[in-house]
Amino acid sequence: MLSFNKEFGFDVTPKLQEIMQDAKSKIKDEMDSGKIGYYKLPKDSLTMVEEAKKLQLDNIKQVVIIGIGGSSLGIKAIDSILRPITPEAKEILFFENSDPITISSTINKIKKDEACFFLISKSGSTIETTSIFKTLVERFDLKLDNAKNIFAITDNGSSLSEFATSHNITQFNIPHNVGGRFSVLSAVGVVPLQVAGYDMASVLTGADEFLNSFFNGNEEHLLRKACFVYENSKKLSINVVFSYSDCLENLTKWYVQLWGESLGKIDKDGQSVGVTPIGIIGAVDQHSFLQLVIEGPKDKTMTFINIEDFGNDLAVPDVTLKHIEKTNFINGQSFNTLINEQCKATMQSVVDSGVEADSITLDKISEKNVGAMMIYYELLTSLVGAMLDVNTYDQPGVELGKIILYKNLGNN
Amino acid sequence: MLSFNKEFGFDVTPKLQEIMQDAKSKIKDEMDSGKIGYYKLPKDSLTMVEEAKKLQLDNIKQVVIIGIGGSSLGIKAIDSILRPITPEAKEILFFENSDPITISSTINKIKKDEACFFLISKSGSTIETTSIFKTLVERFDLKLDNAKNIFAITDNGSSLSEFATSHNITQFNIPHNVGGRFSVLSAVGVVPLQVAGYDMASVLTGADEFLNSFFNGNEEHLLRKACFVYENSKKLSINVVFSYSDCLENLTKWYVQLWGESLGKIDKDGQSVGVTPIGIIGAVDQHSFLQLVIEGPKDKTMTFINIEDFGNDLAVPDVTLKHIEKTNFINGQSFNTLINEQCKATMQSVVDSGVEADSITLDKISEKNVGAMMIYYELLTSLVGAMLDVNTYDQPGVELGKIILYKNLGNN
Repeated sequence: MLSFNKEFGFDVTPKLQEIMQDAKSKIKDEMDSGKIGYYKLPKDSLTMVEEAKKLQLDNIKQVVIIGIGGSSLGIKAIDSILRPITPEAKEILFFENSDPITISSTINKIKKDEACFFLISKSGSTIETTSIFKTLVERFDLKLDNAKNIFAITDNGSSLSEFATSHNITQFNIPHNVGGRFSVLSAVGVVPLQVAGYDMASVLTGADEFLNSFFNGNEEHLLRKACFVYENSKKLSINVVFSYSDCLENLTKWYVQLWGESLGKIDKDGQSVGVTPIGIIGAVDQHSFLQLVIEGPKDKTMTFINIEDFGNDLAVPDVTLKHIEKTNFINGQSFNTLINEQCKATMQSVVDSGVEADSITLDKISEKNVGAMMIYYELLTSLVGAMLDVNTYDQPGVELGKIILYKNLGNN
Repeated sequence: MLSFNKEFGFDVTPKLQEIMQDAKSKIKDEMDSGKIGYYKLPKDSLTMVEEAKKLQLDNIKQVVIIGIGGSSLGIKAIDSILRPITPEAKEILFFENSDPITISSTINKIKKDEACFFLISKSGSTIETTSIFKTLVERFDLKLDNAKNIFAITDNGSSLSEFATSHNITQFNIPHNVGGRFSVLSAVGVVPLQVAGYDMASVLTGADEFLNSFFNGNEEHLLRKACFVYENSKKLSINVVFSYSDCLENLTKWYVQLWGESLGKIDKDGQSVGVTPIGIIGAVDQHSFLQLVIEGPKDKTMTFINIEDFGNDLAVPDVTLKHIEKTNFINGQSFNTLINEQCKATMQSVVDSGVEADSITLDKISEKNVGAMMIYYELLTSLVGAMLDVNTYDQPGVELGKIILYKNLGNN
């Protein structure tokens, strides 16, 4: 269960009420018309769970993901959060970056006979993904025709889809109306994570329950948050997500893409709009980022995320360190308590210094909570995008760099 | 060698020239007067290298770091960068966060008889650090008196220093005039990294050479960059460091603390000032953050960092994937070339879209380059701090949260 313990403070005027209702209508229309597909994934992807279960992968101990951006960040996020409660999950190796050192060292971890390979690209021709896959094909002498350990996840009809068809490689398709950064609950996340041993049906159920709750009018705080972010996006141009658990770090990276690419846009009036997302981790980053938040420019909103019950009772033992007795007050307390009290105290100090902050608490680490968190952020993004009146789902700004790259590498 | 290939574009007026010279004078005075100590570390810490070499740790295979913020980020940064060229370096385990899951899983990696423990805290009573150390003492039944595998790194006279003295534990001291986030080239970074097998004398030499070059007037670009950041800090309130190598990710985290805590301040006129630091990694984050930079609010400057020669010749093989022939233009090229061309193309696209960007190129991964990069950022921070007229070296904003924590946990 997620609880939303504090909200950004503002008065909901009739005008803002109208903005909220318009945004809700707009995204409901996106959903009902089928224009945008991610809203349907929590239900529709249950079939992907079943498909994944049918794959005959009994000897497989490693799941290798070759994908970047929307084709990896969501998978990493879920893997990181659920691994502590899923110790039996298979190892997942990620090939994302074009960094030669990382690629070489990840290659060295692969045991070919125990590995299955997921080649993930919505467009089908992502340069990092195809280059790395070619490298693996050569290095491990992968046989492509009728391969039982290689899978493609891509749009139906993409070049990668045609490649898979021509070799009789099993493929799973991403609906055309689901963008890469909104695709975590499609085949992109569901199939490899289910194969790795995660209970993806529960992740989908958690997402579905939150989605329904929102559209049934039970999550009005989400509308108010979107409205606050929108109304203040010029002055409070940065949103910092401060997550109090290492296992949430990859979720914040997923959020950075979702938020940054969706909202950083030129709007219909030709104005550059958007809110810059930053993900930091507590308690560590109290020692790095907090000073700036408290005393620096008041250009930030903050969202604190914490986990009430880590399912881990490690406690500070009753040990006294000579001359450091002043820290004895923590003896006997669990680290679970310490980190949550740090979150609470830091949030209080931030609010006291005049920074707007809200908070989300996961009662525990669970599949349903992960699903709910992800759909929460997707809905929030769609709502803010609707209010800003931008196309939340495209990314025209990244094309120029690709054109220059292709030109410079001789493919002009 | 570092090269600075492009600078932020602006005219140096006589007034700005004066601001630059004043800032340079101010930090030269900090150095010469001994008020601020980090400037002397590249030379003075050579004795720490010798001290570390004398430690009798032949059976040691793991170096365990218990520290947070300035007591861990710099060590992690150097370890991450130099590990690819130092395969013989001992494993380093980090205990930073109060997250019970991470603490438990790191504990499980420790082999007590092969491990040495560095307890690092400038103040001597950091709550995360002491709590974790107590846990290790109990878990591994560590004997404190005359321990040969436990070391303290702290300010002389701190409670941790007194603790070490009382148990006859070897300690290394951080100069009083060196702040935590400027302490990487003190005993904090030098001793454990030397013990792990890194050539810290070369890191210090690289730092010393850059420092001398700057004070000898050969790095005027640094003054101009500081001046540009200062002059535009209200409008361009975010600096994004975009590093094109996974091994630089921890360096960007170190930079975030250095920059955020040093510059995010209330200035002498009571105004909140500062520039928000963000670290991202290429090519991965082209797929996550780039859209926002190109089309979103023009509130950012960007610094691209790349490595000319990764010392790795992994190349995209001459493999054709049926139906994905359009990516064949990359065949035969090294990933080293690909990632650097991606950096170049992305920077070009950013500049073409009207964002101010500069770039730093490391000719290769080397100890001297790491040292130079770190002192570069420390000097830049000091210069901007001098121009903003803030106390670059304190962090009063983080105290309130500690007070609330202590109060809530019953130690009021």
